[in-house]
Amino acid sequence: MDYFLPSDNDTIVALATPAGVGAISVIRVSGDKSISAVDELFDGKLKLKDSESHKIHYGKIEKGKDVIDDVLVSVFKNPNSFTGEDAIEISTHGNPYITTKIINELVELDVRLAEPGEFTKRAFLNGKLDLIQAEAVADVINSRTEASLKGARNQLDGLLSKHVNSLREMLINTSSLIELELDFAEEDVEFMSLDKIKGNIISVISEIEKLLKSFEYGRVIRDGINVALVGIPNVGKSSLMNLLLKESRAIVSEIPGTTRDVIREEISIDGFLFRIYDTAGIRLTDDLIEKEGVIRSREVVKNADVVIFINDVISGFSVELYNQLLELTSKEKIIILMNKIDLSHEITRNSDVKVSALTGEGIEELFERLKEKSIGTNIFTEKSSLVTNIRHANALEKAKLALENSIESIENGMTGEFISVDLRTAESALGEIIGKVTTDDILNNIFSKFCIGK
Amino acid sequence: MDYFLPSDNDTIVALATPAGVGAISVIRVSGDKSISAVDELFDGKLKLKDSESHKIHYGKIEKGKDVIDDVLVSVFKNPNSFTGEDAIEISTHGNPYITTKIINELVELDVRLAEPGEFTKRAFLNGKLDLIQAEAVADVINSRTEASLKGARNQLDGLLSKHVNSLREMLINTSSLIELELDFAEEDVEFMSLDKIKGNIISVISEIEKLLKSFEYGRVIRDGINVALVGIPNVGKSSLMNLLLKESRAIVSEIPGTTRDVIREEISIDGFLFRIYDTAGIRLTDDLIEKEGVIRSREVVKNADVVIFINDVISGFSVELYNQLLELTSKEKIIILMNKIDLSHEITRNSDVKVSALTGEGIEELFERLKEKSIGTNIFTEKSSLVTNIRHANALEKAKLALENSIESIENGMTGEFISVDLRTAESALGEIIGKVTTDDILNNIFSKFCIGK
Repeated sequence: MDYFLPSDNDTIVALATPAGVGAISVIRVSGDKSISAVDELFDGKLKLKDSESHKIHYGKIEKGKDVIDDVLVSVFKNPNSFTGEDAIEISTHGNPYITTKIINELVELDVRLAEPGEFTKRAFLNGKLDLIQAEAVADVINSRTEASLKGARNQLDGLLSKHVNSLREMLINTSSLIELELDFAEEDVEFMSLDKIKGNIISVISEIEKLLKSFEYGRVIRDGINVALVGIPNVGKSSLMNLLLKESRAIVSEIPGTTRDVIREEISIDGFLFRIYDTAGIRLTDDLIEKEGVIRSREVVKNADVVIFINDVISGFSVELYNQLLELTSKEKIIILMNKIDLSHEITRNSDVKVSALTGEGIEELFERLKEKSIGTNIFTEKSSLVTNIRHANALEKAKLALENSIESIENGMTGEFISVDLRTAESALGEIIGKVTTDDILNNIFSKFCIGK
Repeated sequence: MDYFLPSDNDTIVALATPAGVGAISVIRVSGDKSISAVDELFDGKLKLKDSESHKIHYGKIEKGKDVIDDVLVSVFKNPNSFTGEDAIEISTHGNPYITTKIINELVELDVRLAEPGEFTKRAFLNGKLDLIQAEAVADVINSRTEASLKGARNQLDGLLSKHVNSLREMLINTSSLIELELDFAEEDVEFMSLDKIKGNIISVISEIEKLLKSFEYGRVIRDGINVALVGIPNVGKSSLMNLLLKESRAIVSEIPGTTRDVIREEISIDGFLFRIYDTAGIRLTDDLIEKEGVIRSREVVKNADVVIFINDVISGFSVELYNQLLELTSKEKIIILMNKIDLSHEITRNSDVKVSALTGEGIEELFERLKEKSIGTNIFTEKSSLVTNIRHANALEKAKLALENSIESIENGMTGEFISVDLRTAESALGEIIGKVTTDDILNNIFSKFCIGK
């Protein structure tokens, strides 16, 4: 770590498993005093302080003479734990009353309740994970589809870190060459030519652009794809929604009417999360009054990554609604769908995909169109690094801008100092991504979004 | 085990931690193939089959070349596991998508999904726990107050088992003496006198009666105490409910109006669970029509362990409602409460406790009355055995009846065979409690109520 933020020395505790009743629950303790604190409560065959690392011990957790629970205790010795500190996991009967009681006993022994993400934060501060990997821990936990899990794993396994690190090193090397040149500028020594420096910077820019390009895809696989269903009344929006749910490869969750006017369902198609919003026949404009439902439907269309514009062979293509749509979103995002082709195949002009929500005909083609519009041909190969996080994308944009400035400086014949400042800005932006350069604010912002116990 | 039910040889798997998203989740695998099956998916520093028992290994769970998750795997070798079989616990990131994926991979490897309670059932079948202890596992998990947890622990720690076992052994010894006497009846040898046998049986009966007596208390601490609040309109039932919630030592859960007409709240007073039902001014009789609410209120009063009959100093003692109450419950269960003593102290006859729901005066006394009526002076000492389970109480009743029959046989000068049959019935009833004598039906009935993963 270049800029190391010292961890406080507190020993921390939290329930690590989901809240609720189950067969077992796990309490996690980390810090210098974790082993001695649990030893005060633990009655087993040996003292935990005498245990090797990665050993499990059966025994009882007691408060005075009262047994709170019989447990399995796992011992992890610094630095061979998730946090890099001495750590204990207590596996109890899965009863919130018991886990609360044990956690309270530990708090009595000067162990502090952990803050959200504090275990992972310590893993970062102790150099077990870089910041990309630490953030990926939360993404791994929250992944709900194949693609999002793979994206998160890709980062947890360090692919993006490695890529960013190598770019940063290239900049550091280039910087130091420029600075060397500055030091010896009076002497008549041949140093790296400005062309060579420029070439280096351009190749870093080009790598950053590739990463930024992966973010289009990465964002979609991490956060899912918002799809709006729009159409005039009676074209079969609800039937189409039902067909999507029935035919999709996996329903992720069914959230019945979370808002009053818009129904949202989540489905997974080939491992990608699609969040389908049915505007349920709400019109997009209303001459008399801007009703709540109209506002919501307009928001849904504006925020959608893809809009399925539903028509049917009976009413034909609804030019009026299509024009309204174009005021809210771009043409590229719209899939024009012609429904009820079971009734007639005649009116099929003006459509990207033809479907019968009744028979299911055309649904596979609709799935293909959905993937095309959202993921495109931009399929990432699993072994290439992938940006999924807006914080990383923003930092990459910052680095790119600084590097573009440095190129401009070179082309305008500015002195090495100017170039150097830009390179250091870019290097620092890349450092922010992996956490080489960081602040308490950045860290708090990241880890406060974690769950407690992680 | 006298009557051993063979376990099937399947290896079983289940999520052991509560469902949902968290820092970590634990998957439990048990059976002959647990280690080899997990080894097929696990990529770590060593093969799990080469691991010692009670060791933890970091590694990755993979499907082909895809990493599903990085995990900690705990190895338990037969017989040193909860089930007594080879067992594995896989600690994953707390994501249902990941745990489902890993469980599915294990199912591909011929591991079967566990049935509810199947791990504990195997622990019983493999002689790690007797049946009382196995049942106590579920009680430990479901305890929500200090008293219920202590009761469950008492049984899990084997106190009741020991007691029942010693009674059963005394019967077996007595039986064999009688049978010996039968065998040698022709010869003129001095055997145990009938008085001695009678004395033994009577002392077992007396012990069983003590255990049955403990069930009054045991049931209450395991299942909680049902309290009905009854009173004519405007005597302050809701205010009293609020005061109980506010002043009780701990609110266990707040269940807002689970039925339309009766509000139920759960509170813990000194570690005992009280379930308070507010009949909300519903009358107990209605001349015109038996309304739904009236029926429910009557049920609540009938099922209540304690009825708080609320009057106030303004309206005085409501004789009519009191008489209606006496038709539904016994006088002993009723606490007559006089509310609003902040307004006047004059009308205070006819009451067991005087309260001001407004100022809180008298609430401590009400708590005392509640404990007196429900738990009584019947406080069990922690080291004495305690019956909490209706199945155990029923078997004890059966044993007691058979022993009383045997006494009758002795007194009526019946032959040893008659006495012997009764003793064997009693012995078998006691054996049912600890699971020495059991059937598939009994076991299925017990374990089907467990959660999956336990």
